[in-house]
Amino acid sequence: MGHCMSLQDLKQAVLEANLATVRNGLVIATFGNASAIDRAAGQIVIKPSGVPYDEMTTESMVVTDLEGRMTGNRLRPSSDLDTHLVLYRAFQGIGAVIHTHSTFATIMAQSLMPIPPLGTTHADYFRGTIPVTRHLAPDEISHNYVRATGEVIVETFRDIDPLEVPAVLVAGHGPFVWGRTPEEAVLNATILEEVARFAWHCMMLRPDPAPIPNALLDRHFLRKHGADATYGQPG
Amino acid sequence: MGHCMSLQDLKQAVLEANLATVRNGLVIATFGNASAIDRAAGQIVIKPSGVPYDEMTTESMVVTDLEGRMTGNRLRPSSDLDTHLVLYRAFQGIGAVIHTHSTFATIMAQSLMPIPPLGTTHADYFRGTIPVTRHLAPDEISHNYVRATGEVIVETFRDIDPLEVPAVLVAGHGPFVWGRTPEEAVLNATILEEVARFAWHCMMLRPDPAPIPNALLDRHFLRKHGADATYGQPG
Amino acid sequence: MGHCMSLQDLKQAVLEANLATVRNGLVIATFGNASAIDRAAGQIVIKPSGVPYDEMTTESMVVTDLEGRMTGNRLRPSSDLDTHLVLYRAFQGIGAVIHTHSTFATIMAQSLMPIPPLGTTHADYFRGTIPVTRHLAPDEISHNYVRATGEVIVETFRDIDPLEVPAVLVAGHGPFVWGRTPEEAVLNATILEEVARFAWHCMMLRPDPAPIPNALLDRHFLRKHGADATYGQPG
Amino acid sequence: MGHCMSLQDLKQAVLEANLATVRNGLVIATFGNASAIDRAAGQIVIKPSGVPYDEMTTESMVVTDLEGRMTGNRLRPSSDLDTHLVLYRAFQGIGAVIHTHSTFATIMAQSLMPIPPLGTTHADYFRGTIPVTRHLAPDEISHNYVRATGEVIVETFRDIDPLEVPAVLVAGHGPFVWGRTPEEAVLNATILEEVARFAWHCMMLRPDPAPIPNALLDRHFLRKHGADATYGQPG
Repeated sequence: MGHCMSLQDLKQAVLEANLATVRNGLVIATFGNASAIDRAAGQIVIKPSGVPYDEMTTESMVVTDLEGRMTGNRLRPSSDLDTHLVLYRAFQGIGAVIHTHSTFATIMAQSLMPIPPLGTTHADYFRGTIPVTRHLAPDEISHNYVRATGEVIVETFRDIDPLEVPAVLVAGHGPFVWGRTPEEAVLNATILEEVARFAWHCMMLRPDPAPIPNALLDRHFLRKHGADATYGQPG
Repeated sequence: MGHCMSLQDLKQAVLEANLATVRNGLVIATFGNASAIDRAAGQIVIKPSGVPYDEMTTESMVVTDLEGRMTGNRLRPSSDLDTHLVLYRAFQGIGAVIHTHSTFATIMAQSLMPIPPLGTTHADYFRGTIPVTRHLAPDEISHNYVRATGEVIVETFRDIDPLEVPAVLVAGHGPFVWGRTPEEAVLNATILEEVARFAWHCMMLRPDPAPIPNALLDRHFLRKHGADATYGQPG
Repeated sequence: MGHCMSLQDLKQAVLEANLATVRNGLVIATFGNASAIDRAAGQIVIKPSGVPYDEMTTESMVVTDLEGRMTGNRLRPSSDLDTHLVLYRAFQGIGAVIHTHSTFATIMAQSLMPIPPLGTTHADYFRGTIPVTRHLAPDEISHNYVRATGEVIVETFRDIDPLEVPAVLVAGHGPFVWGRTPEEAVLNATILEEVARFAWHCMMLRPDPAPIPNALLDRHFLRKHGADATYGQPG
Repeated sequence: MGHCMSLQDLKQAVLEANLATVRNGLVIATFGNASAIDRAAGQIVIKPSGVPYDEMTTESMVVTDLEGRMTGNRLRPSSDLDTHLVLYRAFQGIGAVIHTHSTFATIMAQSLMPIPPLGTTHADYFRGTIPVTRHLAPDEISHNYVRATGEVIVETFRDIDPLEVPAVLVAGHGPFVWGRTPEEAVLNATILEEVARFAWHCMMLRPDPAPIPNALLDRHFLRKHGADATYGQPG
């Protein structure tokens, strides 16, 4: 998020992102959480913990810095806050993080199945396989579980550019997705669910389906992303 | 339900719970029924039998005691009343019971497949495998079938705490779910359907999928339940 | 339908039944058709052919006798009329017929897979396996195809009571469903789709799933149907 | 489209077709595009690139000729324009083209699985198997990828009449569908998704499901299409 966005605007954008995950069918009950960062101001806004979506307002949003230091909030932050903080510290290019338990992404996460690029829908948003983390060790679970979840994601992306593959499946849990803006993170989370649905169904037809050719993967990714993108309208 | 809730409030809460099962996609036609108990007053309120959901009001609700004795009701109770009564007598900590034929929970019940804890969505609400009852014997079906259904559920929970695993799959039939309040029972029934959907799809990828580690199961269950719960807002 | 129902009432009931199949998700485009009969008056009312559902009124309904003789109609009848007529002539107890291409019932019909009673949802409405017809022979298809479709349904029910199993899967085509009234036929078509969905998913877990015990099948069917039914409210 | 339709009418029809793909659940995000041609005027109207569906008006529509020459448009055309142009040049009888990433058609396209005629729903709209293209070669992808996509479709239809089978699955990508009018193309795209859904589920029950008899295929296709069609209302 650019530094010219006010804190109130950031809260509004995070509220909208949270509501969009529900509207797009990615979230039931109070599962799921979205956050965004204003890197210039060093401020992160995140959903509160366990508040019903239809009671959420900009005032319910929780403000913190990159180390999780908070003052003046009415409500407790999402119980997944520490995972978000690790991602913001490690992935400098991202501006928003979304966690859901969306159906097919969660099924793949529970099955420890990465999602290979089986079609151009995938290639339009993810330049390669969407990986699964390893399971956390018992001591990682008992000490700082939420932060360890972030760290195992970062470990998984040691050789992957998080802006080229803006999503991960946390083993036995569900997806974390990100983007440069809250809107982009919502879109990535929505497309992730769709490509996970595609992948599951393709795997039922053939246990080990073939990825699309690399030339096709790049052709689609690069027409939507990067300096030479041609998709959409100029400006 | 606390003893300070009036009978009218209890009827309203049971009506709401019944309507929520329809709204959450757990029930079609006139399938399904929800009830709740005021243990101090010894009163149970349950849905009437075969009344369309869009004609149901608080006046349609049926009142009974723990032995099924009724006076002054306009309508017949749900044909599953005796199952609810057995559960209230056996499971002292529960305040509401819901029965649905929700799609994936019913598929697992028809397939006699328990639902192992394959992910944290499951662990957030159910501390372990959701069991399936045995099939009733022919003479249990011919005599007191509905009560026998309750008794086989209780038998199935001989070594399971019903507040740690607040749902069961009745063989060849469908789920019964409970909670301390009607709202909690509705939430448990909704999450049950989601984890049954997850489990079915995971089983299609791998016939015998691995449960999540025990440490992860406990970590998630205990952050939402019990004295040390940290999820949500205080109070 | 009783003979005290006017033709206008019959048209209204058939219009409602057609619209209900769309509302219940059983029909897309202009697929599907519903009809009803007034046996005392010897009149059948059926949906017109190829008219969009949102333009249908009681005036669009087509009236015929049991032999398909029509006068005074503004529109052509459903192209499946002759199938309906055969069913009304052969199955004296039925008052309404519905044909849909609902998703899972059609999948089972295309796969030539009968639907065994795998659970109590099935048993509540169908007292046994829902059969599949044989494929029609080429000469049956080229001469009187629509009537032959009705005749192969009647042939399939040689040893089945159509009021105990009020539905059939026509091979390679889709379901025909009936009932004593249009409302009952709509309900049967809706439940058929649900039990077909259940059956397909159960068959994916186990290729040859076991039907529920006969005692359970009868217990559920007979509490909703026949002289000793106890489900619902008296009168 | 007849030459008596104004350019404004053509834009309205293309806008409607685009919105219908969203309403019918065939499109998420900004995926998908619909176009139509006025052959007499030599004008094609197509959706703009990357514009949200809820901001689209007739003014957003882009006008081009059969060679892709454009003047006076406010917006860039769909990035798939060149595929549409190839189809209009090669398939003289078609008046509209639609591209979607609809779920089951895309799953079949990603799995390189043609859709055989497994039932009468298929036969009502497609007279035979819906084919899959071959994968493009790397040099086809790097030079004129979008035009090459059109050319591989035309190559696939060397021995198929595009008005008898008005759809194709592009390998690793998704469906392109057409019709004589925008309304017909929308209907074909909607039915394609339904028959793809049917086919996927049938293939799960039997890996190599049997097509319906040819007599049944023709009987259904020809009652809806061609000079002797009897379906619907006269005129």
